[in-house]
Amino acid sequence: MPQLLARALASRESVFARMSRLAAQYGAVNLGQGFPADAPPAFLLEAARRAVGTVDQYSAPAGLPALRDAVGTDLGVDGADVVITCGATEALNVLALSLYGPGDEVLMLEPVFDVYLPQARLAGADAVTVPMTLDPVAGWSLDLDALSAAVTPRTRALLLNSPYNPTGTVFSAGELARIVEIARQHDLWIVSDEVYDELYFGDAPVPLRTLAPERTFTVGSAGKRLEATGWRVGWIACPPGLSSMLAGIRQQGSFCSPAPLQAAVAAALPVARESGFYAGLREEYAERMALLAGGLRDAGATVFTPRGTYFLTALHPTWHAETLVEHAGVAVIPGEAFYARHAAPTGLLRVAFCKSRDEIARALERLTAARNVNVP
Amino acid sequence: MPQLLARALASRESVFARMSRLAAQYGAVNLGQGFPADAPPAFLLEAARRAVGTVDQYSAPAGLPALRDAVGTDLGVDGADVVITCGATEALNVLALSLYGPGDEVLMLEPVFDVYLPQARLAGADAVTVPMTLDPVAGWSLDLDALSAAVTPRTRALLLNSPYNPTGTVFSAGELARIVEIARQHDLWIVSDEVYDELYFGDAPVPLRTLAPERTFTVGSAGKRLEATGWRVGWIACPPGLSSMLAGIRQQGSFCSPAPLQAAVAAALPVARESGFYAGLREEYAERMALLAGGLRDAGATVFTPRGTYFLTALHPTWHAETLVEHAGVAVIPGEAFYARHAAPTGLLRVAFCKSRDEIARALERLTAARNVNVP
Repeated sequence: MPQLLARALASRESVFARMSRLAAQYGAVNLGQGFPADAPPAFLLEAARRAVGTVDQYSAPAGLPALRDAVGTDLGVDGADVVITCGATEALNVLALSLYGPGDEVLMLEPVFDVYLPQARLAGADAVTVPMTLDPVAGWSLDLDALSAAVTPRTRALLLNSPYNPTGTVFSAGELARIVEIARQHDLWIVSDEVYDELYFGDAPVPLRTLAPERTFTVGSAGKRLEATGWRVGWIACPPGLSSMLAGIRQQGSFCSPAPLQAAVAAALPVARESGFYAGLREEYAERMALLAGGLRDAGATVFTPRGTYFLTALHPTWHAETLVEHAGVAVIPGEAFYARHAAPTGLLRVAFCKSRDEIARALERLTAARNVNVP
Repeated sequence: MPQLLARALASRESVFARMSRLAAQYGAVNLGQGFPADAPPAFLLEAARRAVGTVDQYSAPAGLPALRDAVGTDLGVDGADVVITCGATEALNVLALSLYGPGDEVLMLEPVFDVYLPQARLAGADAVTVPMTLDPVAGWSLDLDALSAAVTPRTRALLLNSPYNPTGTVFSAGELARIVEIARQHDLWIVSDEVYDELYFGDAPVPLRTLAPERTFTVGSAGKRLEATGWRVGWIACPPGLSSMLAGIRQQGSFCSPAPLQAAVAAALPVARESGFYAGLREEYAERMALLAGGLRDAGATVFTPRGTYFLTALHPTWHAETLVEHAGVAVIPGEAFYARHAAPTGLLRVAFCKSRDEIARALERLTAARNVNVP
């Protein structure tokens, strides 16, 4: 038999899929993969039940006009500049294919969200990563001089994520202004992964497109915003005039996004905005985050309080994700999963708090019991 | 500003999306794009309304186990060898990325379904096409010697479509046996696009995987089978042992397929099989096909009766799809859309009969009125 290509042979189960599989196998509480324990809001579910049987056939590859307009209104951009995708994963893949290829470099940060590197590789480009600094007291920070120094004549794009999975960083307006300066100086595209744009615990994040509308592609996700990660409705807000080419390339990947779920999200986005749904989610998750962070500290971990996302990072001297799942019955994501070019901080873990209070409490009980166990 | 890459700049709106847009613009009856006028069956819709609010978070990239098993049972393969995708379009794209790349050739037929060529180009491979022969009396046929002669040392895969969009051809067991012989002789993968596997009007198509299970990837579509083209639930049935690598590469493209719609399809597939849904669809479409074919013949067209799919092809000496949509108020797909390397037969059109009887009747009225108009 012939072989599969190297790029297929190199593809592996993601760490998130693997930890979820191990959690099921060992009956562990799953604080690994970032999907919420709560159901999506009723206004979204009802809209979907209405759309099923009504909006069942292909949409245009760029998306249902009603959804493009709803996203545009929500973000403050023209709906004509919005492309709907099968989740933010496809949005990021379409951008990789459109913005960088063989001979090009794309600049990103480490820790790095797990799809960025293989997508760059599939696009044929080289990923160059700049490490975030982790100080046990001050937490995570970005060395902007190091970012600037990493630009080469081959660099085509900067790929950023704020609120940042896994660090929980929300870049300040000042940091973003400096990033835009670097991008303009070297004429780089900016891909701004803002899937957690409504999940922040201090000041609201500044959307990068407001600082550099001519070069910024904003990636968003109805799944993250509306607690329905399996629905596969994401979007790209493009600089003016580029959406039709991006829609052209995405139609080769999946043709269009699930039409009835697009219709449901179109109906739900203004309701979510007007009803205060996002603010309610922030309040709830802030409490769960405090519960988790306090319990982890009690169990001996150093916890870095996130400014956004539904994850926190922590250091623990004796815990290892690979063995915790089996021996303590708690699944978390190992820090190494977010590092490819640089070394991960020793003992780094990503722990999700988009789980129920009961799950968080059970996980903390198990971790406290495991505190003094020399987990192998 | 930097440029988009050539592969994005080269991406264009598909002919199907364009003709649907023009149909809306001119108020034309749309016999172009292949989406059905009828609603999906109630048993599918009810399953989706139940799944929404229950199965809302990520599935594994390979798909919900229940759906992989349901597809496996339906096709007579092991569910572990099935990968669920965002429609057949993504299935074909994942296969292109996995099976052929730079320096490789993939062999396909012309007329060619519109995503095959750009997907091969995105994968970095060269598409080599062998033209079908169109005889005004005998209809479409494949010259198997020409197919065999087109294989080179660089050929990695054969991409086939049976029932065949747009020709309506269903390859016979004898033809398929010869195709398998060619694939085995040159050690080629076979990608068998069988999205219309339940839409045939004579003998049931022979699934290629039953003749060459070791090298055949079968592509299928719940959207085509269950009249829900916008749901984005397709699949690949793989030769044993290869599904995890394909799931690995698909997770970079869209992570997973829409979870509640996967759950609905899992529940619906056995009902569709046991209730005779597919046989009912075949009967209904056979009648609509006869209605359309008769009307087109009356209007001066030469019609080639399809053995499968919900399209027919026809030749007409004076009609052109580009002008018919505006001047006759009927959208069809121009034959040229399916040709890239060879010349399309003059006057070739693809006309869909997955539309309502009323739409077909109105289209025929308009076309009959246009019969003697010298459509510019």
